[in-house]
Amino acid sequence: MLSELKKRVHAANLELVHNGLVIYTWGNVSGYDRESGLVVIKPSGVAYDVMKPEDMVVVDLEGHVVEGNLRPSSDTPTHLELYKAFPELGGVAHTHSTYATAFAQAQRSIPALGTTHADYFYGDIPCCRVLTPEETAGEYEKNTGRSIVEGISGRSPLEVPGVLASFHGPFSWGSTPEKAAYHATVLEKLAELAFFTLQLSDSIPVFPQHMMDKHYLRKHGKNAYYGQR
Amino acid sequence: MLSELKKRVHAANLELVHNGLVIYTWGNVSGYDRESGLVVIKPSGVAYDVMKPEDMVVVDLEGHVVEGNLRPSSDTPTHLELYKAFPELGGVAHTHSTYATAFAQAQRSIPALGTTHADYFYGDIPCCRVLTPEETAGEYEKNTGRSIVEGISGRSPLEVPGVLASFHGPFSWGSTPEKAAYHATVLEKLAELAFFTLQLSDSIPVFPQHMMDKHYLRKHGKNAYYGQR
Amino acid sequence: MLSELKKRVHAANLELVHNGLVIYTWGNVSGYDRESGLVVIKPSGVAYDVMKPEDMVVVDLEGHVVEGNLRPSSDTPTHLELYKAFPELGGVAHTHSTYATAFAQAQRSIPALGTTHADYFYGDIPCCRVLTPEETAGEYEKNTGRSIVEGISGRSPLEVPGVLASFHGPFSWGSTPEKAAYHATVLEKLAELAFFTLQLSDSIPVFPQHMMDKHYLRKHGKNAYYGQR
Amino acid sequence: MLSELKKRVHAANLELVHNGLVIYTWGNVSGYDRESGLVVIKPSGVAYDVMKPEDMVVVDLEGHVVEGNLRPSSDTPTHLELYKAFPELGGVAHTHSTYATAFAQAQRSIPALGTTHADYFYGDIPCCRVLTPEETAGEYEKNTGRSIVEGISGRSPLEVPGVLASFHGPFSWGSTPEKAAYHATVLEKLAELAFFTLQLSDSIPVFPQHMMDKHYLRKHGKNAYYGQR
Repeated sequence: MLSELKKRVHAANLELVHNGLVIYTWGNVSGYDRESGLVVIKPSGVAYDVMKPEDMVVVDLEGHVVEGNLRPSSDTPTHLELYKAFPELGGVAHTHSTYATAFAQAQRSIPALGTTHADYFYGDIPCCRVLTPEETAGEYEKNTGRSIVEGISGRSPLEVPGVLASFHGPFSWGSTPEKAAYHATVLEKLAELAFFTLQLSDSIPVFPQHMMDKHYLRKHGKNAYYGQR
Repeated sequence: MLSELKKRVHAANLELVHNGLVIYTWGNVSGYDRESGLVVIKPSGVAYDVMKPEDMVVVDLEGHVVEGNLRPSSDTPTHLELYKAFPELGGVAHTHSTYATAFAQAQRSIPALGTTHADYFYGDIPCCRVLTPEETAGEYEKNTGRSIVEGISGRSPLEVPGVLASFHGPFSWGSTPEKAAYHATVLEKLAELAFFTLQLSDSIPVFPQHMMDKHYLRKHGKNAYYGQR
Repeated sequence: MLSELKKRVHAANLELVHNGLVIYTWGNVSGYDRESGLVVIKPSGVAYDVMKPEDMVVVDLEGHVVEGNLRPSSDTPTHLELYKAFPELGGVAHTHSTYATAFAQAQRSIPALGTTHADYFYGDIPCCRVLTPEETAGEYEKNTGRSIVEGISGRSPLEVPGVLASFHGPFSWGSTPEKAAYHATVLEKLAELAFFTLQLSDSIPVFPQHMMDKHYLRKHGKNAYYGQR
Repeated sequence: MLSELKKRVHAANLELVHNGLVIYTWGNVSGYDRESGLVVIKPSGVAYDVMKPEDMVVVDLEGHVVEGNLRPSSDTPTHLELYKAFPELGGVAHTHSTYATAFAQAQRSIPALGTTHADYFYGDIPCCRVLTPEETAGEYEKNTGRSIVEGISGRSPLEVPGVLASFHGPFSWGSTPEKAAYHATVLEKLAELAFFTLQLSDSIPVFPQHMMDKHYLRKHGKNAYYGQR
């Protein structure tokens, strides 16, 4: 069942390891199959070096396991909230990568400070609000997903392909699982650049809007001219 | 004698090297065999790349060498104090890993600042008190062990699977030597995350107790639902 | 056509990857063939691990593609401005390397703070001015090149083999594509050294002029005595 | 001539590369043959990956080349001053390693802040004085050596197996070329630990003298009990 997507989700999970974003069992990537309405996701607490494509778990959008002997990632309900809120998503990734998690723990959004950022994110990478004790005691992972949807409210999820969950870490996404993992790497790199920039600055530098527009649009606008067509 | 445990302790020592926590002869891991009451530990000052499982030294809880041609790690008495105080331990690890050692040298505990921390440690990672000149001149390594026992006093050692020895570095432990080494890696990562978080913050962020409870208990409480059962 | 230069430019691009200066499709290196007046440059948005020497694109100094099925790097007009302004250049490189980009995002020049710096750069590594909205909306990449030429105005480009484009990142160059990539690595290392030096200093340390002269000239002056002759 | 020492000096130079202390042609290690009074040293400006043991240059203590087709490292006169001043030395190393060079550029000594430091260095790692314009214009490299000898004046070079040359970088040494390279790695690690410790501290922490004594002497005193005998 969905064996091609399982291979891709498995590979995207390993990409997080290769890029130094996760260790041990930390982090997870899922992929969404629009046709069947099913999600393929990493099993919970399984080490990356023993995990195989067929270990990926298939769940429906309500979180019921449709196929697989292992339990899905404990963060599954967060992923599902995102797929339900944003039909354009085909993949979601979560890591505890160093600089992004530091911003999340400091409860700071990652400001747009240069063209590397604007090549991928149009505007800041928001740090979402803290969950209340009630939201945390209840459907915690689902409520984390809701706080993320709230956090990017009013913006397109493909223009902001990732956010920070407060005190937790980054979630990212894209039209495929590969792009979700790709954006996890980009988000960490942007957090790292922002960290060092802030250490070198007395106040937060003001990145001009016209440069933001130029860089985002030369890659993503309808007249984009970056890359091959 | 205890050849299986020797292999495991040897492998756990090499795990510290692979994870970038120790260089040269720095650091050591031991394992405790509850049945015989004996401890297997790395020899002192032997380089990791030439060390073999059969070089591991067997000592009793009083520190007498029971088997082995090499001298045990000079930190052996510290390990033994921990095994004597906490019967639930099956392994102890010691490193000079960068961020954890920096906190120890700054005499600062590592505050709990996010869910990555709460997934493993319930509360801060304490920095133990400095030994007096008398304690240092006397049974220094044994007294280091005593200061660690003091430092986690009132808490369960499995809820705080590691501490910082003041001006020295981290000690960590677990129910097996593998888990002791695992916690050495986790502790270093948490120290790194805390370091960058503090650099991004004007004051120490307050990580909400309800998130701490949620994350620690979803992995370690009796209703834990993280991982496979 | 120019197959030898294509191999060298391809290899110089991969050197950026090996030295950890670029990930994915970030960054680019070009080489200039003085005899034909043509430039060989990396194609736009092609991943390094699939890129082959024959994928390199040949353009003339006005930016017309002379050979190649792929579109040249979107930064091509910046490279061309540099070749036109400075006939001594044989290669240009661009990266988003961490520390150099942080200085660019903080809009700070990299000060000369020691002999490592003076072995390669005579004086600071300037951060060029920000482009106006008009320059950005217009021929952005060409105007970036012009701002770089302005930024090193009055100094020899071989004495300042690299600069920072504001809010963007480093550009570097040399008499060959290999040297352009080499200077990209050196520039990043100097930015890293400067970053840590500034963190350790209450004010910017004053590196004595006589030491700058000595180190630059022992490697680059007419009485240079460093290296083999 | 001295072919065994050439192999060892060659290997010690590569050790600097493997430990990430030098890139390209930066850094150098030499070894001293007490019997013949000759020094074997890395050639100047030769890349590590093409350098062979037989490329090592043999010089006498006055700096005359006794054997070898290549020019010796431009830092040779610094090494020679150290061998002449301290007959106990058998090897000298020089790098531009990141954290140590940052302290040198900030003109700060590396304070003794913990047991890792005290395991190797008894007291701080001094930053030597800046050379005058006259000393720099004259026999610069020889005068660098003299400033180092001055910098550790009153202390034993084996108790302080390395220093920082102001605005330049670390020099280290030992009874053999291997130990000189080993101390280069240790010195960099201590600089890194000190850097992060200082970032976490409002003022420089006071590492108690009794802990310094204990750690230095348990490894190096006449009653040392660390390692194998």
